Amino acid sequence: DPRFESLLDKVKEIVDSNESRRLPKLPKGTRDFAKEQMAVRDKAFKTITDVFKRHGAMALDTPAFELRETLMGKYGEDSKLVYDLADQGGELCSLRYDLTVPFARYVAMNGITSMKRYQIGKVHRRDNPSKGRYREFYQCDFDIAGDYKTVAPDSEVVKILTELLDELNIGDYEIKLNHRKLLDGILNFCGVPTEKFRTICSSIDKLDKLSFEQIKREMVDEKGLDVETANKIGTFVKQRGRPLELLAELQQGGSEFLEEDPAFSALNEMDMLFKCLESAGCIDKVVLDLSLARGLDYYTGVIFEAVFKGATQVGSIAAGGRYDDLIGMFGTKKVPAVGVSLGIERVFTIMEQQLQKDQNQAIRATETQIQVSVLSADLLPLAFKLASACWNARISAEYMVHKQIMKHINRAIELRIPFMVIAGKDEIEKGVVKLKDVVANKEEEVPSSDFFKALKREEVTLSDFAEELIARLRSMSS
Amino acid sequence: DPRFESLLDKVKEIVDSNESRRLPKLPKGTRDFAKEQMAVRDKAFKTITDVFKRHGAMALDTPAFELRETLMGKYGEDSKLVYDLADQGGELCSLRYDLTVPFARYVAMNGITSMKRYQIGKVHRRDNPSKGRYREFYQCDFDIAGDYKTVAPDSEVVKILTELLDELNIGDYEIKLNHRKLLDGILNFCGVPTEKFRTICSSIDKLDKLSFEQIKREMVDEKGLDVETANKIGTFVKQRGRPLELLAELQQGGSEFLEEDPAFSALNEMDMLFKCLESAGCIDKVVLDLSLARGLDYYTGVIFEAVFKGATQVGSIAAGGRYDDLIGMFGTKKVPAVGVSLGIERVFTIMEQQLQKDQNQAIRATETQIQVSVLSADLLPLAFKLASACWNARISAEYMVHKQIMKHINRAIELRIPFMVIAGKDEIEKGVVKLKDVVANKEEEVPSSDFFKALKREEVTLSDFAEELIARLRSMSS
Repeated sequence: DPRFESLLDKVKEIVDSNESRRLPKLPKGTRDFAKEQMAVRDKAFKTITDVFKRHGAMALDTPAFELRETLMGKYGEDSKLVYDLADQGGELCSLRYDLTVPFARYVAMNGITSMKRYQIGKVHRRDNPSKGRYREFYQCDFDIAGDYKTVAPDSEVVKILTELLDELNIGDYEIKLNHRKLLDGILNFCGVPTEKFRTICSSIDKLDKLSFEQIKREMVDEKGLDVETANKIGTFVKQRGRPLELLAELQQGGSEFLEEDPAFSALNEMDMLFKCLESAGCIDKVVLDLSLARGLDYYTGVIFEAVFKGATQVGSIAAGGRYDDLIGMFGTKKVPAVGVSLGIERVFTIMEQQLQKDQNQAIRATETQIQVSVLSADLLPLAFKLASACWNARISAEYMVHKQIMKHINRAIELRIPFMVIAGKDEIEKGVVKLKDVVANKEEEVPSSDFFKALKREEVTLSDFAEELIARLRSMSS
Repeated sequence: DPRFESLLDKVKEIVDSNESRRLPKLPKGTRDFAKEQMAVRDKAFKTITDVFKRHGAMALDTPAFELRETLMGKYGEDSKLVYDLADQGGELCSLRYDLTVPFARYVAMNGITSMKRYQIGKVHRRDNPSKGRYREFYQCDFDIAGDYKTVAPDSEVVKILTELLDELNIGDYEIKLNHRKLLDGILNFCGVPTEKFRTICSSIDKLDKLSFEQIKREMVDEKGLDVETANKIGTFVKQRGRPLELLAELQQGGSEFLEEDPAFSALNEMDMLFKCLESAGCIDKVVLDLSLARGLDYYTGVIFEAVFKGATQVGSIAAGGRYDDLIGMFGTKKVPAVGVSLGIERVFTIMEQQLQKDQNQAIRATETQIQVSVLSADLLPLAFKLASACWNARISAEYMVHKQIMKHINRAIELRIPFMVIAGKDEIEKGVVKLKDVVANKEEEVPSSDFFKALKREEVTLSDFAEELIARLRSMSS
């Protein structure tokens, strides 16, 4: 039917024209950062980097993608969230899922036996994007690798986490802490078969979101534990309390399984860890929580997770732990390691909310100090002469060309640019420029030569210049 | 044959064991940044960011990948170098190839009509990796979008490029500059058919690597121009010289085609541009070079490229130009724009070479100021008390646990940590800690309480502390 054909062509034409006219989109779960958001982000990264550097860490940057084999077998069930690159010939690669595995790869590849490193970078996960959850987000990681015989690195990593959260100043928090080996001891003692340890752990880990009855049903109905075993698990994992106190209770009133490995060394390690944290003055932030299990496969010792206190929306802001076998998976050498990872997206959200509450704290998106305003297009070379004098003196400046002076002034006020330098035909004839203090709304003419001389002095700073400008304005008004 | 079976099993075993033992690798054309390289990189980024901010630009960060449709049809022949993500269900995405197209997408998507932005980020290209060429590399971009009626943005972008290269201090350079419309006028005048403009441009663009005879052969033999046309092109594109002088020559002695558009407006724009650059004091860095054509499709006006002077290895360090139609490709609104992109990898290489030459300038990979040294493992909580006092006072500190004091001292010397705080059993009994100036090799015992008091003062800084320490050491030695 030719009418059908012609109709089809019409439809195709409309679709095409819509296609070409519609606005571009971002991939699902990603976003742009601009303006005030960038200022907030820079502030957060500065705080975090300062803490990391203060602990003697080296910076590391790794590629956005790794060979697929590097990431395989590291994330358990979460492996399905890894983004793969298309096979365009050559190697098979995937976007990095976290910063821990690339760090382990780096340490193994370079035969390193000891390293303290920090890394701030984007990671990618094919998760379901939801409110406040993204497929591309930043992680801020600090890790210590090396054959340390003590829990010093574990203690330092927890101390660092408290410094991060204290200095970011984003609300009251607590750090839930547990030990994989203690958990293994408990599961073993309760009669859980070894091959079910990890899957039972992931049920226990849900205790922050579900009731014990709910996870008991999961363990019994779905994972085939008997009811008695599940109940026995319940008597342990419901325990949480102040670290040194709960630890003493466990050590004294505990069952005999706590006197043999793996639980025994776990308790000893935690004892020293808590003493170090007490010395460091941050133990008040820590809660020993026997229900904490953490999803990832690679943890082998201390594990921890920071959460906001009294928050309705539960969820961790940061997490970490010891992973003694991960680096060894890449080479012949086993290098023990422990680290912490801060998910910065939630931090950004909180900082942005804080900003909105406190309007006085409003952050400028740019740092421009001087607006060079010329009043006609043929004066453009003059604008460049004036602005370049500022730029060359390391002063932040912008030019503007427009006939109406009010357009200039309004722009400066709107962008909160504190000073203006104005030149029109009149000023040129007189050999002057007009300096304006935008906030005080005062202005004065100065010989152009003075302006250039002021900016040519060695080591001129904006404060020198502003001082001079303000002094002139004062003398003018007096 | 059972022997064959058993042999096969042996081979399989060996292969598996080799497989598990071999070291991990990086994807081809990518690299890690660590230690001194990171310090160099941070320094370069700081210099670049300072220049960008000084010109009133806002920071922007866009995702590592975009929808594939966003990148399609923007890069001409280079589209084959775009990295695609695998189709894992959902949208088709590709890693960003540059920062210009994501910027154009951002401007169009947000209905922006005027914006000055900078962006520093990684881009990915499936190029053949070779010496100094990577598949993942950083670009540092500055762009001005908006309906400016003058060449002010073009002038500012070129001025910024001179500031970047001057302040990075990586060697003598020149900026080759041309205008797409002038080039179009020339090609038209020489008799090149419109549909061959872009392909002839890409031949002309090779004049920095090939002789005119070679590109003439390409234009005639491969691209089907007649010899006369090719020769005529030669008389133009061989011209290069000081901007204002060559421009005046063209305007006076030029053919009549220079008196009509597109060449006429190109010459006028360049006239104003050069006057602005003269005013800005940077015209000496610019060469008007009629052979510059630039590969990318999207340029529509002024184009430029910075190269090192007298370098044997030719190749651009930075490039840019005007692209008035790119943003309009994403929306209904046409927003003209001009920008510059600095490829930072070459800059890193040069800065690293400079560092190696000047050993005195050696950069430390960490900033640790104090090493807290305890002499037995059971003193770990004390180490944490001493180190935490430093950390809480915002002083960079590391602890070390080892029986032998020389191990401690050697570590501090090797890592160039200037001060040590030492505590062993003796010191604890006496209620003191030992302070050591590592460089001067002097030490003194101070009451532990003094140490903590010094660090508890409000706004204590390392220089306060060091001053006090040095004063003590001086009084000790006198």
